[in-house]
Amino acid sequence: MEQQMLAELKRLVGAQYVMEQLEDRICYSFDATFRDFPPDVVVKPGSVEEIVAIVKLARQYNVPVTARGAATGLSGGSVPVQGGIALVLTRLNRIIEIDKANRVAVVETGVITEAFVNAVNQAGLFYPPDPASAKTSTMGGNIAECAGGPRGVKYGITRDYVLGLEVVLPNGSVVELGNKFDGDMAGPDWTMLLVGSEGTLGIVTKIYLKLVDKPSAKQTLLAIFNSLDDAANTVSEMIASGTIPTTLEIMDNLTIRAVEDYLKVGLPVNAEAILLIEVDGSAAAIAKQAGHVMKVCKQCGATEIQAASTPEDIDKLWQARRAISPACGKINPTKISEDATVPRSQIPAMVRRLREIAQKYNLKMVIFGHAGDGNLHPNILSNKHDHEEMERVEQAVEELFKAALDLGGTLSGEHGIGYMKAPFLKWETGETGFAAGQKIKQVMDEQGLLNPGKLFNA
Amino acid sequence: MEQQMLAELKRLVGAQYVMEQLEDRICYSFDATFRDFPPDVVVKPGSVEEIVAIVKLARQYNVPVTARGAATGLSGGSVPVQGGIALVLTRLNRIIEIDKANRVAVVETGVITEAFVNAVNQAGLFYPPDPASAKTSTMGGNIAECAGGPRGVKYGITRDYVLGLEVVLPNGSVVELGNKFDGDMAGPDWTMLLVGSEGTLGIVTKIYLKLVDKPSAKQTLLAIFNSLDDAANTVSEMIASGTIPTTLEIMDNLTIRAVEDYLKVGLPVNAEAILLIEVDGSAAAIAKQAGHVMKVCKQCGATEIQAASTPEDIDKLWQARRAISPACGKINPTKISEDATVPRSQIPAMVRRLREIAQKYNLKMVIFGHAGDGNLHPNILSNKHDHEEMERVEQAVEELFKAALDLGGTLSGEHGIGYMKAPFLKWETGETGFAAGQKIKQVMDEQGLLNPGKLFNA
Repeated sequence: MEQQMLAELKRLVGAQYVMEQLEDRICYSFDATFRDFPPDVVVKPGSVEEIVAIVKLARQYNVPVTARGAATGLSGGSVPVQGGIALVLTRLNRIIEIDKANRVAVVETGVITEAFVNAVNQAGLFYPPDPASAKTSTMGGNIAECAGGPRGVKYGITRDYVLGLEVVLPNGSVVELGNKFDGDMAGPDWTMLLVGSEGTLGIVTKIYLKLVDKPSAKQTLLAIFNSLDDAANTVSEMIASGTIPTTLEIMDNLTIRAVEDYLKVGLPVNAEAILLIEVDGSAAAIAKQAGHVMKVCKQCGATEIQAASTPEDIDKLWQARRAISPACGKINPTKISEDATVPRSQIPAMVRRLREIAQKYNLKMVIFGHAGDGNLHPNILSNKHDHEEMERVEQAVEELFKAALDLGGTLSGEHGIGYMKAPFLKWETGETGFAAGQKIKQVMDEQGLLNPGKLFNA
Repeated sequence: MEQQMLAELKRLVGAQYVMEQLEDRICYSFDATFRDFPPDVVVKPGSVEEIVAIVKLARQYNVPVTARGAATGLSGGSVPVQGGIALVLTRLNRIIEIDKANRVAVVETGVITEAFVNAVNQAGLFYPPDPASAKTSTMGGNIAECAGGPRGVKYGITRDYVLGLEVVLPNGSVVELGNKFDGDMAGPDWTMLLVGSEGTLGIVTKIYLKLVDKPSAKQTLLAIFNSLDDAANTVSEMIASGTIPTTLEIMDNLTIRAVEDYLKVGLPVNAEAILLIEVDGSAAAIAKQAGHVMKVCKQCGATEIQAASTPEDIDKLWQARRAISPACGKINPTKISEDATVPRSQIPAMVRRLREIAQKYNLKMVIFGHAGDGNLHPNILSNKHDHEEMERVEQAVEELFKAALDLGGTLSGEHGIGYMKAPFLKWETGETGFAAGQKIKQVMDEQGLLNPGKLFNA
């Protein structure tokens, strides 16, 4: 990187917010995937004006800019695969407004998900998306990858709550997309072009979010199965019967064992699968719904159903769910986490395909995820230094994506595309869809400087 | 239009589906707005392949193509302002699938809204968007303008139910956007770029829609007010108190009188305003919610609250709501129907501004609409042959849009932009947003042939 550009960056944002040492660059070279791509420089702007100036400077010197929040991503979306500037947005961390009258929140891009959720709770309202990374991930990151979480079944995912965005475009202009309330619909909705775009079409700086009523009560159930197929069938049957719980999470035996070993919360380690089911609403409604959930579980072969009654018991179960990633990471150093998603009726078929793939390539695969959403998380536990094994992993991952698309599904339910799935994107969009995506990327970012190597510029 | 092109059109779709006589062209020259723009030819394709061939032919001869369904639009979105081909999509009218297991429907673009709603009901599910034009409008038209309806308060509008689209792009290629289930999120969501795009970026041929649970019970309430301000305040107070009814419709005195004169259903003609409020859910939940609704209405000055108990009574009230447009049309021949929308907390302020504007320009204005959504429908009743009056109407409309934007609102809550609001779009998007929209239009439709004169090509 040219010394003159570095000097200008320092002048723009202050020298303490420009980091060029190797040790700093390494710290900003990775996310929760397994490859490292050090940027040439790390810059931490403090305002939208500074971001505009940085983007204009990058154009002038033809240097890539890859925005990032907390880099908890599971597809490599924020990793600067072509170097250049790692633009760290964590200093833009103000919760600007929680407008109770209009049930809308306005936040800056670097606000931590959990901090936002807590503020909304305190205002007596509810923001349902709840990615497992909530304690560290940023709201801007949720937008960039369109994060989901266990409540997607009933409440939808991030995109369902985004009303508008303030965005720095690749040419350095600032644009407000959408609006700060729900009823707005004047022409095409550019907002959704940015959601899930991984910083390739613009840098999101401010977010308008829809809030909803807090449910007055909830109940959490744990259903235990002797067979993974039975658990998968239960998911399809439940949805088909018209009962939509708030969450409907599946964990297979390997997942259960990994978590229990890590957390010691008393999970049934001999079960072939469990479903973690939550219902919410008014007290009367949830009693009825929980009754129906239990009935379907029993009909589909659950051997036991436990109702968590105390807040401590409920908390334990959700701790267990959140601990899956670290617990699996403890077993094998390299955890390839996928989130290929299928229509809910295809969950049993997808589970079968996943087990066949694991067997065929002789790989250790745990299966868990937001089953009610069709959003499974097969995780392959491996070791990136074992090259022979990694080749089998690559083949298995390809086959896994093909299986999801065969079943009418998608490459990603909530993790995004990143560098990991970019090579497969065309399978999903088709040639025509991919060409349209490329064209829009080109027209919005002529120099191709925003997060190159991702999505339609991979 | 060149004779050779006409001959080729006839060969492509059959001579009986190509209409070139003046009387036919006049029939396809207007929608529910007040200006006529006859196309050069009317073409009724019977398949996606025929649409592709027509679009390619239009490119070859450089002739505009404006898609239309039933042309019930209230902004002029489907009117061929630059002539060319009026592409009538009503022959693509199959309901392809109602998939109960995945709660998804697949329809062709020309399916009538009501036919679709009935089919979903029969399957035991629920499709909430309910534009007043449901008896005649098409599903493709709902997508093109992002139609809404009274249930938007609780259930959202058309875009909230669109999972995916099949689209003929301006270059004649066919692309599938989104996917047929909810959990899909692989990259930016191009689907929403098409929703509300009025056929300017592509021609929607097939639609994947999300379905939800049918509420088990509902109750309809009619609250009567001595003051329009009180009714408007009730709306804001209701939303702020956390009670979100399914519908929250406002009608001012002029509207009430017009409808009662037209339908004779026993509306309170001396009331300054009424609110038509529906709650739905389980029987227990709605009893509680109706109680809360009545409490807020009384606190805010309702003089009387009637509960419609029989299906006939409920039906009468909704008949009254749906009759507003024809009833007002009877009073004055030219009805300028706007749908400028504001954040819900600004409803009282917007109602005041509307009355000031009507007074300032000495115009007959009825005020009604989906108040719970912030989506008011001020309708100016006038006569298009009275040129002096129409000048005042134009000034009033401009001022009305300015008022909505001043209050943090938008030009359109559900009617779209069309030729009527195209001149004002830049006020809402800003120069930068408009330029971005223009660029995307240009790159997707280089020759500018799809519905020219609308949105970013106006």
